Amino acid sequence: MGEGISLSRRRALFGAAGLAGAGVVGATAAACSDDPKPISASAPPGMVPFHGARQAGITTDAQDRLAFAAFDVTAGTTREALRDLIVGWSTAAARMAAGQPVADDEAAPQAPPRDTGEAIGLTAGNLTITFGVGPSLFDERFGLAARRPAALAEIPPMPGDNLDPLRSHGDLCVQACADDPQVAFHAVRNLRRLAQGAAVLRWFQLGFGRTSTTSDSQATPRNLMGFKDGTNNIKREDAASLDKHVWVGADGDQAWMRGGTYLVTRRVRMLLESWDRDYLRDQENVFGRVKGSGAPLGAAQEFDPVPLTAKDASGELVVPEDAHVRLAAPATNNGATILRRGYSYTDGVNQATGQLDAGLFFIAFQRDPRTGFIPVQRRLATQDALNEYIQHTSSAVFAIPPGVRDEKDSWASALFAT
Amino acid sequence: MGEGISLSRRRALFGAAGLAGAGVVGATAAACSDDPKPISASAPPGMVPFHGARQAGITTDAQDRLAFAAFDVTAGTTREALRDLIVGWSTAAARMAAGQPVADDEAAPQAPPRDTGEAIGLTAGNLTITFGVGPSLFDERFGLAARRPAALAEIPPMPGDNLDPLRSHGDLCVQACADDPQVAFHAVRNLRRLAQGAAVLRWFQLGFGRTSTTSDSQATPRNLMGFKDGTNNIKREDAASLDKHVWVGADGDQAWMRGGTYLVTRRVRMLLESWDRDYLRDQENVFGRVKGSGAPLGAAQEFDPVPLTAKDASGELVVPEDAHVRLAAPATNNGATILRRGYSYTDGVNQATGQLDAGLFFIAFQRDPRTGFIPVQRRLATQDALNEYIQHTSSAVFAIPPGVRDEKDSWASALFAT
Repeated sequence: MGEGISLSRRRALFGAAGLAGAGVVGATAAACSDDPKPISASAPPGMVPFHGARQAGITTDAQDRLAFAAFDVTAGTTREALRDLIVGWSTAAARMAAGQPVADDEAAPQAPPRDTGEAIGLTAGNLTITFGVGPSLFDERFGLAARRPAALAEIPPMPGDNLDPLRSHGDLCVQACADDPQVAFHAVRNLRRLAQGAAVLRWFQLGFGRTSTTSDSQATPRNLMGFKDGTNNIKREDAASLDKHVWVGADGDQAWMRGGTYLVTRRVRMLLESWDRDYLRDQENVFGRVKGSGAPLGAAQEFDPVPLTAKDASGELVVPEDAHVRLAAPATNNGATILRRGYSYTDGVNQATGQLDAGLFFIAFQRDPRTGFIPVQRRLATQDALNEYIQHTSSAVFAIPPGVRDEKDSWASALFAT
Repeated sequence: MGEGISLSRRRALFGAAGLAGAGVVGATAAACSDDPKPISASAPPGMVPFHGARQAGITTDAQDRLAFAAFDVTAGTTREALRDLIVGWSTAAARMAAGQPVADDEAAPQAPPRDTGEAIGLTAGNLTITFGVGPSLFDERFGLAARRPAALAEIPPMPGDNLDPLRSHGDLCVQACADDPQVAFHAVRNLRRLAQGAAVLRWFQLGFGRTSTTSDSQATPRNLMGFKDGTNNIKREDAASLDKHVWVGADGDQAWMRGGTYLVTRRVRMLLESWDRDYLRDQENVFGRVKGSGAPLGAAQEFDPVPLTAKDASGELVVPEDAHVRLAAPATNNGATILRRGYSYTDGVNQATGQLDAGLFFIAFQRDPRTGFIPVQRRLATQDALNEYIQHTSSAVFAIPPGVRDEKDSWASALFAT
């Protein structure tokens, strides 16, 4: 093959890579320039800034698609190699969030492409990439034991748990959310690729159809049981609640986590075949909400307060004692409040049972799982009427450090600072 | 709970169900009426007509999301019960394609809801539902053996196959495509529910990121190997090619299949970890195309003809002998041409290998797999350079009957006519 063809091929790849940005920023001169777009805090529509005081993907308006991955650092990886991985991930994530390929160097024919290419021509799709570290990273391997936050406690076993250890836990996590599943998949896959030799994929979950509302501008979506889910979630407009319940403040025991948060994931399989045979009234009693409107039982509108004490003519509680909405309410949990950001999932047919393997990939952020997810879930696991129709099949907790300040910073930089 | 609450709850559910249509047709008076929207061949934007001479979802502009299910009819199901299922599926599919719930009767609190509800409030999302029957339906159970078309031949074993029988074959199939995965999932789930007692889910595959172009108005998407896929697909504007290669004509051996087609599915796992380590030039030689532009090697533009005979200065073929684009080209397959409509998929991590379980859910329509998919795949399976990086893990073939004419018709009605 002649040199002329090789040159034009290189140019073609380079040109196409540039176009990935062009789809996002419009037909501006910058899109045709060789310089990467500067990354600023005021990103154009369709782009969420990667850099900032907090990581994106927490209070960002929930995108519709999720690719969530947990990684284990491989045996023999040094602290320096781990650090290098984290720096490399930070650079790649900033580029991908800006709608750029991982690298847009001129392609070298005799080397693997530095970007896997399936997102070329797609927009940034509001991609956010959120990084975290699991409790296992604080063992003896990297000399980090003294920096483990007390709040990064393992989630204790809960009644009814049926956890798959191969789909649970992990040293590192990556939450990629985007409006396009191919963009989210591309992000995780390229980060996995950059991890070659330092970390391996432990588990990977695709999600669709967000199950929560994270701002006043989003309508409440429905979970796969057909109910509105996330009505009473904390909204990003509510800075006071976020500071109180989500962000780690100056009183945290580890300075490197200030401005960060803690992430709990639970893969909650729904026994949809049983649920679909349940009567409407029973379904509504299980959730404590009207299926159509989402209003609490005994109330008129979705956002009406839950009438926890109201009784009907025969003296029965209108919202049953074991209704999910009652047991999960902050008012009945000493104020415990979490920011949910879950997604529906389906992974085909469970070949052991012949039933759909589908449900909710639950994601919650909080400043301390010991006062957030853990007590609420302990209560739900013993009393919730919903337990007849669900099964928790994976569990993980991660510390989510504060944001990456700029191009020179990397996530978790303060964790590794000496 | 007082009757007043029950009434308002019923109204709420009914109202919300009505709104599912309203999102699609806009704020017209019809959306607030109790009458279901009439289903017409000129559907509003966002709706694809279910009724017509051909089934939708074949030449329809490929939507971005797929939910594909295969069902097995359960032991003891009579021919009449199977027929009832098919009639019920036809009615439900027409409603869902019009953005309506499966049933919008007033909800009965002491009965299971007739629609599972997770699509309430979503638009129709260009949902198409395409039905088919597999070879196994023509055994002794339903007296249909004499109606089995010769073209509905089992796909023979191919070199390199690593098929999972539990993810292959099936008596019936449902291909649901939509712009929203929750809409596609909802369709399959509700059809599964209607099948209760008559058929069980055999396998189920979610797909994202279509991998083909089915009309001149669609840009060619990229598969998970980062290459444009579907450049030379038949376009729906090319009626002559469709008649020649896709639609069963009057010369078919079974009258009930006239106007129908045959569907082949193959779940093709991509060995992405190996692929991502391959050099750019090797990747391009494997496909026979430039990765960036999608142009055939030795050509300038994506849609340029593949220069099958061109040689470089050293006398080597510019498009290698074993390049995918050469081996799959109709010109090198005695004109064999299929209509592809595949999707990317990922099903997490293969727990046996620790590698991503991701790739292409290949879907192809043709008037006869014996002259379409089978000879092309037999050639690819033995010679294609791509084989080093892929593995076929499931296989199925289905007869896709012609369209459902109107509300009184059902799919495959001519198959069951006496």
